[in-house]
Amino acid sequence: MPTILGQNQYGKAENRVVKITRDGATHHIKDLNVSVSLSGDMDEVHLSGSNANVLPTDTTKNTVYAFAKEYGIESAEQFGIHLARHFVTSQEPIHRARIRIEEYAWERIANSGEGEHSFVRKGQETRLAQITFDGSSWEVVSGLKDLTVLNSTDSEFWGFVKDRYTTLPEAHDRILATDISARWRFNWSGDEGEMPDWDASYEQTRRHLLEAFAETYSLSLQQTLHAMGARIIEHRGEIDEIRFSLPNKHHFLVDLAPFALKNDTADGAVYFAADRPYGLIEATVLRDGREARIPADLTNL
Amino acid sequence: MPTILGQNQYGKAENRVVKITRDGATHHIKDLNVSVSLSGDMDEVHLSGSNANVLPTDTTKNTVYAFAKEYGIESAEQFGIHLARHFVTSQEPIHRARIRIEEYAWERIANSGEGEHSFVRKGQETRLAQITFDGSSWEVVSGLKDLTVLNSTDSEFWGFVKDRYTTLPEAHDRILATDISARWRFNWSGDEGEMPDWDASYEQTRRHLLEAFAETYSLSLQQTLHAMGARIIEHRGEIDEIRFSLPNKHHFLVDLAPFALKNDTADGAVYFAADRPYGLIEATVLRDGREARIPADLTNL
Amino acid sequence: MPTILGQNQYGKAENRVVKITRDGATHHIKDLNVSVSLSGDMDEVHLSGSNANVLPTDTTKNTVYAFAKEYGIESAEQFGIHLARHFVTSQEPIHRARIRIEEYAWERIANSGEGEHSFVRKGQETRLAQITFDGSSWEVVSGLKDLTVLNSTDSEFWGFVKDRYTTLPEAHDRILATDISARWRFNWSGDEGEMPDWDASYEQTRRHLLEAFAETYSLSLQQTLHAMGARIIEHRGEIDEIRFSLPNKHHFLVDLAPFALKNDTADGAVYFAADRPYGLIEATVLRDGREARIPADLTNL
Amino acid sequence: MPTILGQNQYGKAENRVVKITRDGATHHIKDLNVSVSLSGDMDEVHLSGSNANVLPTDTTKNTVYAFAKEYGIESAEQFGIHLARHFVTSQEPIHRARIRIEEYAWERIANSGEGEHSFVRKGQETRLAQITFDGSSWEVVSGLKDLTVLNSTDSEFWGFVKDRYTTLPEAHDRILATDISARWRFNWSGDEGEMPDWDASYEQTRRHLLEAFAETYSLSLQQTLHAMGARIIEHRGEIDEIRFSLPNKHHFLVDLAPFALKNDTADGAVYFAADRPYGLIEATVLRDGREARIPADLTNL
Repeated sequence: MPTILGQNQYGKAENRVVKITRDGATHHIKDLNVSVSLSGDMDEVHLSGSNANVLPTDTTKNTVYAFAKEYGIESAEQFGIHLARHFVTSQEPIHRARIRIEEYAWERIANSGEGEHSFVRKGQETRLAQITFDGSSWEVVSGLKDLTVLNSTDSEFWGFVKDRYTTLPEAHDRILATDISARWRFNWSGDEGEMPDWDASYEQTRRHLLEAFAETYSLSLQQTLHAMGARIIEHRGEIDEIRFSLPNKHHFLVDLAPFALKNDTADGAVYFAADRPYGLIEATVLRDGREARIPADLTNL
Repeated sequence: MPTILGQNQYGKAENRVVKITRDGATHHIKDLNVSVSLSGDMDEVHLSGSNANVLPTDTTKNTVYAFAKEYGIESAEQFGIHLARHFVTSQEPIHRARIRIEEYAWERIANSGEGEHSFVRKGQETRLAQITFDGSSWEVVSGLKDLTVLNSTDSEFWGFVKDRYTTLPEAHDRILATDISARWRFNWSGDEGEMPDWDASYEQTRRHLLEAFAETYSLSLQQTLHAMGARIIEHRGEIDEIRFSLPNKHHFLVDLAPFALKNDTADGAVYFAADRPYGLIEATVLRDGREARIPADLTNL
Repeated sequence: MPTILGQNQYGKAENRVVKITRDGATHHIKDLNVSVSLSGDMDEVHLSGSNANVLPTDTTKNTVYAFAKEYGIESAEQFGIHLARHFVTSQEPIHRARIRIEEYAWERIANSGEGEHSFVRKGQETRLAQITFDGSSWEVVSGLKDLTVLNSTDSEFWGFVKDRYTTLPEAHDRILATDISARWRFNWSGDEGEMPDWDASYEQTRRHLLEAFAETYSLSLQQTLHAMGARIIEHRGEIDEIRFSLPNKHHFLVDLAPFALKNDTADGAVYFAADRPYGLIEATVLRDGREARIPADLTNL
Repeated sequence: MPTILGQNQYGKAENRVVKITRDGATHHIKDLNVSVSLSGDMDEVHLSGSNANVLPTDTTKNTVYAFAKEYGIESAEQFGIHLARHFVTSQEPIHRARIRIEEYAWERIANSGEGEHSFVRKGQETRLAQITFDGSSWEVVSGLKDLTVLNSTDSEFWGFVKDRYTTLPEAHDRILATDISARWRFNWSGDEGEMPDWDASYEQTRRHLLEAFAETYSLSLQQTLHAMGARIIEHRGEIDEIRFSLPNKHHFLVDLAPFALKNDTADGAVYFAADRPYGLIEATVLRDGREARIPADLTNL
């Protein structure tokens, strides 16, 4: 046959696991969506359909739930490390495991009852973690998506190239808004190195992203992206690389002149928030001397 | 022709309007999705295609944006009142206007910069408002959707009917979770009565919903629903009726016995958060002596 | 307590059931999403949490799957009739059952193999059925959603009202496009009357909708809506009422004049297909002398 | 500064363009969603915010619409080639252009009117095309997504690895269903080589995918995947590589034994169609001697 089998992986995707921990009447919640991808000596299942090397995806699902009980869920990253190590070290044909996790945050509901076991979903960004293990080295990429931010001023766009198809006027005071999607890679690569405090790292990285967005006087969304990325690399020594995919969520000043209304930014303005099309700005910022490893496409469009 | 024309309405749906107000270097944001539905003397446009009585939907869109500038957006409800009054009083063929509004909340981003013009979308529930005016009386129905809440204990389910098809075991300690979708009708019906403080009413109603959910020891989701509704009617004199559509977001205790693991609620448990199917509990609670007017179906399934 | 309990209903929503029937090596498939809503003597479960009258939603789910085996799925409507009758007649506290069904169509994949058991999902509209039974009379409302249609000419829009906020130019050759969402009510109301052939009725109604859309020279989307509705009432004696919710999916002629390009409809044109906002046209057409019963809101915006 | 800028790209995403072509009273329609990504000499816009090298994303949008008029849309691939060549050859700072296109298919509505200008959206898979040009060589990757297929028999799953967490029973007659997502790379790499007939290639590749799915007696979804891939490589000489991402859409036999009902596959069975979790099978099949270039992740989970 003139074909060869290339990269392949398999596993159970989107295992929705909720873990409740009780500390007396005070409960804690972890809410994850865990996807497992395994690779290794898998030629035969593709060529002949023999499953002799295949741990069923149903088993990988069971393992996720069992490990949530056996190990608890200290953080998404730590949970993924337990899972990845297990698959690679317990099954000879499996040479590489990649665990992807989405985490949904919850807040407590203030109430007059006894105990603390009532929660409301926070609803902001989804936290992301990806743990990859090949039997010897580790790669952890964390991130977030759908963190929607907006500056109502301190954004301009001018001095750009004009060609035959350019009609856009220059803007000296515009809204800048985006849904932040970011992935950042840790330089921790093995059991020996000191493991980062995953939750503390996440909280600080998220804070820096928001602050850098808010504090950057922006001449382009690319400049804002770079400011966010550089801030992370400068302040978070555990992170070597960060990649962004930032839609430019256009807010167009509505032309109210036909109705004898002045709609300018100086005294408060009315905007049309558009859906499609949108600008899409993507880039990697990395620590000098380090190698970029996060793939270019965080989204599929 | 053996047919007659029944209820009909038309307008522009989903006008996305963002209004920025400047108070020096401190900015404020209102972010709405406004849908207009007009009814009246519209037989001809259906029968012959004559548009002589038709204010274009494009015009209703323009009006939304112009009014955001002319009147500002004090609250979703007040904005809808301006719009509904305008359409009914300015166009003779239009006898009734219904304005539906979704509102998205934003929080400020704490930062070291000057001014306050940076925001992050709150991401929790969507606030809803529906204003209807027929030229003489008003109806305002507010609400919210997608407020996801969870109690990790204080919920039971037992003592139910068992028929030939019943296999469900009784539960004495389960997770209770739902996405609250609610609509509440104000008894304010005209320009003469004192208008509620729409924003304060919303904040208090939301707080009561969360507290009632958290503080109710629940033997059924119906009981929790009723407790939430009764709390609103008791505490908010401006509201006569509230209707809920509450999916029972099932969290199933995972059977870990095959792996020699005990998974019971007492010492912290692992759950599978299911998507479909889900229980769906819907009911109206209303003030004694008042008439129910909110339609039964808040959702389409 | 100053509150009373209003309309309420409960059940299991979105039971996804697939039934395969074998006729030798030729298989047939039915693919449904079934939602059950029960009403009746349910005060106590709301007030005290007593489930003594509550058939669990889990049981209603089991019943859906068991009935698919016991009765088969001749059509969505017939399947819903079996279910509704069962719940009302077998449980004394249940006075009314409403079954809502979505059906997904599949086509056979032509292939050289033996037997016929390979399918590709058709992917066009979702077929809808709603069966309501209160112990004595029946109501069947069928329908469809997400049937996207487009006429590239034979549509105009002019002669409309112009007010202060009107800027729309008149159009004499435009694209008319919509996602048809329709619900139609049958006049069959009980076991005694001859039951319609549900599948044949659906196929003919769908065909008439498409033909009426295609054959109507349209001066307004309302006119097209009415033509579709009147065609159904005239040709399908089993149907007394039909309601539509039709978004006007705007396709705007792109202004290419800045690029020295003429973009008019006469010699083929380029359009921007917009997402939001959109016109939304809703109306009921009914047989003369019959009562309208389909609620006004088929969608939530 | 200790950071460096890595891979970056920008452009306007999701330009929805509809092109109508008139051949007398017979119209033709092309319906695309076009996303532009440009890379090149873009350090300054990230570092200082200077837009001196930046062709605005608004201009790339205008170009899409203008080219649809100037060049027409013969096929998605051909349209993307025009666009990619334009951006790279007309703007010195732009060194690479990647055009991604989704195409939505329409069918004619049979009707008794004159002319042929009425369409219904086909609603099955979305066709995909990605065209990349770096000034010297071309890469075209086409594909599809959301083509949902199902075999109601001729699928087994047994002989797999059993570990401590394995509970899955072996299956000797199961449903196999998936949403096909595939990308295939053409070996055409420049203006000199004979360009494939893009539309004919797509139709044949799609046909082979469906036939290979239907005709493969499957012992694993991996085996079915490989059969589909090998069929393409064998029959379509213009294609060197194909990658799949196939969710295993589980259809579980419902346990009806508690209701004294036998539910086995032999005489027609009832299944629960599950949402999450699902198996996810991903692999590349390529022509012997050729290099794999399609990235591993077609989806984000």
